[in-house]
Amino acid sequence: MAEAKVLSGAGLRGQVAGQTALCTVALPGAGLTYRGYDVRELAAGAIFEEVAYLLLYGELPNKAQLAAYMKKLQGLRDLPQALKEVLERIPANAHPMDVMRTGSSVLGTLEQEHSFEQQHDVTDRLLAVFPAIMCYWYRFSHEGLRINCVTDEESIGGHFLHLLHGKKPSELHVKVMHVSLILYAEHEFNASTFTARVCASTLSDMYSCVTAAIGSLRGPLHGGANEAAMEMIARFNSPEEAVKGTLGMLERKDKIMGFGHAIYKDSDPRNEVIKGWSKKLADEVGDKVLYPVSEAIDKTMWEQKKLFPNADFYHASAYHFMGIPTKLFTPIFVCSRVTGWAAHVFEQRANNRIIRPSAEYVGVEQRPFKPISER
Amino acid sequence: MAEAKVLSGAGLRGQVAGQTALCTVALPGAGLTYRGYDVRELAAGAIFEEVAYLLLYGELPNKAQLAAYMKKLQGLRDLPQALKEVLERIPANAHPMDVMRTGSSVLGTLEQEHSFEQQHDVTDRLLAVFPAIMCYWYRFSHEGLRINCVTDEESIGGHFLHLLHGKKPSELHVKVMHVSLILYAEHEFNASTFTARVCASTLSDMYSCVTAAIGSLRGPLHGGANEAAMEMIARFNSPEEAVKGTLGMLERKDKIMGFGHAIYKDSDPRNEVIKGWSKKLADEVGDKVLYPVSEAIDKTMWEQKKLFPNADFYHASAYHFMGIPTKLFTPIFVCSRVTGWAAHVFEQRANNRIIRPSAEYVGVEQRPFKPISER
Repeated sequence: MAEAKVLSGAGLRGQVAGQTALCTVALPGAGLTYRGYDVRELAAGAIFEEVAYLLLYGELPNKAQLAAYMKKLQGLRDLPQALKEVLERIPANAHPMDVMRTGSSVLGTLEQEHSFEQQHDVTDRLLAVFPAIMCYWYRFSHEGLRINCVTDEESIGGHFLHLLHGKKPSELHVKVMHVSLILYAEHEFNASTFTARVCASTLSDMYSCVTAAIGSLRGPLHGGANEAAMEMIARFNSPEEAVKGTLGMLERKDKIMGFGHAIYKDSDPRNEVIKGWSKKLADEVGDKVLYPVSEAIDKTMWEQKKLFPNADFYHASAYHFMGIPTKLFTPIFVCSRVTGWAAHVFEQRANNRIIRPSAEYVGVEQRPFKPISER
Repeated sequence: MAEAKVLSGAGLRGQVAGQTALCTVALPGAGLTYRGYDVRELAAGAIFEEVAYLLLYGELPNKAQLAAYMKKLQGLRDLPQALKEVLERIPANAHPMDVMRTGSSVLGTLEQEHSFEQQHDVTDRLLAVFPAIMCYWYRFSHEGLRINCVTDEESIGGHFLHLLHGKKPSELHVKVMHVSLILYAEHEFNASTFTARVCASTLSDMYSCVTAAIGSLRGPLHGGANEAAMEMIARFNSPEEAVKGTLGMLERKDKIMGFGHAIYKDSDPRNEVIKGWSKKLADEVGDKVLYPVSEAIDKTMWEQKKLFPNADFYHASAYHFMGIPTKLFTPIFVCSRVTGWAAHVFEQRANNRIIRPSAEYVGVEQRPFKPISER
């Protein structure tokens, strides 16, 4: 029984766990598609709310649909007073992803999903409210401010930047937020999305599914790579230092975040998009360090290891150029990916069987119980 | 692409998703074992804290180990003030499982797991604190009371009953709580445990894993069957009414909760145990309705459908006889199953690969993006 065995079923890699109409990853000629559209075309030509609508409602909206949808989302941004009071009780040194997870969970106690007929409204509420959950906690715990959670910004990304900085963001920054939120919106059966689907398969409520997914995205093997990339990039003051430092890390076999991907083998289609916008932001702020350092690491990783930057790597510098604190990088991922999570929950609910795999038993054989007096 | 297909990978049924040394379910001759011990022997001869120790630390404790463990748990029962203040902000009409999920998540913001070396301490803390999370919220929201979360009860089950009722429980009730918590402690790769393992596979923290698992246990296809059974049983005033009512429900093809099981085919080994204790409790309170009604439904289900009661069915009457409100039945499940969840998280961490299955794509073929002006 207890003899050594080859680990079976490890990570369910390559095992089909269900169906989806939302996304393809790494199909030949189409690196990443959302409902049939290449993510690069979406990032170039659409705003994030169009993509959220596409994922959640099935098709890209026309002008009237988009206007109505944005108006709906704008009306759902404020936090209930009780949620603000909860966020005020979370200390500044809490992990920001724990704040997002708690915000989602608390909202579920205040505004329950009583029936699956509410699933679109609950999702739109979460989508609208996450920037305020993050920024209300951040600015209260770090600056002692009780911010107004309502702004006149049209978009979710602009609203987020406005709440964070307390002022109207530039057009360029709003555009980059659209691109970033589009790139992170959906990625098939990744671990956080699969968590949401397992939870949904018990017919639990949307808040439970999203709360669970945030818990998985928090893990350093999943979300958080852009934060780790930022920490690495920030160590170097010049491209020369970066090359030297990268070679040293490779020699010491240190983990270098932001490169390679479990599914993509040659390149991550999201990288070329965010890299271009990171360059634009670098030019805007007159950066002569962070972007060249990023490029030097990128080049070194390719030359030494044939490893390509994934979606996270140039996100680090892009977010940094917009004045976003590094600890909020992964929470932004939540603001975007909630669309993918919820769309997968809709699918799971529409054709459900409880997700209950098997385990290979590797423990001791059956043994008789001995009462404590005999132990 | 979009043509109808047989659903593949549905629920991962029968697919091995990993290894465990914790539990066997439905092996011939051993209905349910925890680390090699038959759950019926554990329920007969051990207290819950011994079983928690067995699952979490690998072996049954001797007397000194058990005494030290119970003392440790007793010292971890009180809630941080901030968590009490959060629980006071959750309304009385919230779903009690949302309260448990939120309590776990908030505790994770206040007392982080910074390193996996803390995993046993964090687990023991959660195990010790869940009764107070449940009862502090319940009694504040329903009775307007701020209860003291510390009692002099030795056991977790006794502590729970004391917090709930505000007085020392009887020996019989404490014994039944031990039995109940033992029966619910662990059950292999069920949906909530699998949720915890998927979350753990990203190397996320223990609070995220447990919070996610609570979200899955909340679903009506998973936890909650004992609550549904209680609601059904309470409808009938006599065994005759119950037989008639059950036949009617079967004829209308109503879902009858508390019978049958996805894994067990002939009987649920936990049923005979809790049924016996429910009978004892019925005798103690002089019940002439609820237990006979339960038996009548049990008998009718077997005669009509060859369906057996599972662990949940006689739990309903047993909990009811101890004065536990029906809405708290599933939260008690959390107080027990946190041991199994955490033990699985330890296993996942010790031999990890991120859990990332594949999906079968059933969506539209790739299509060119059209800007909004052309839609």
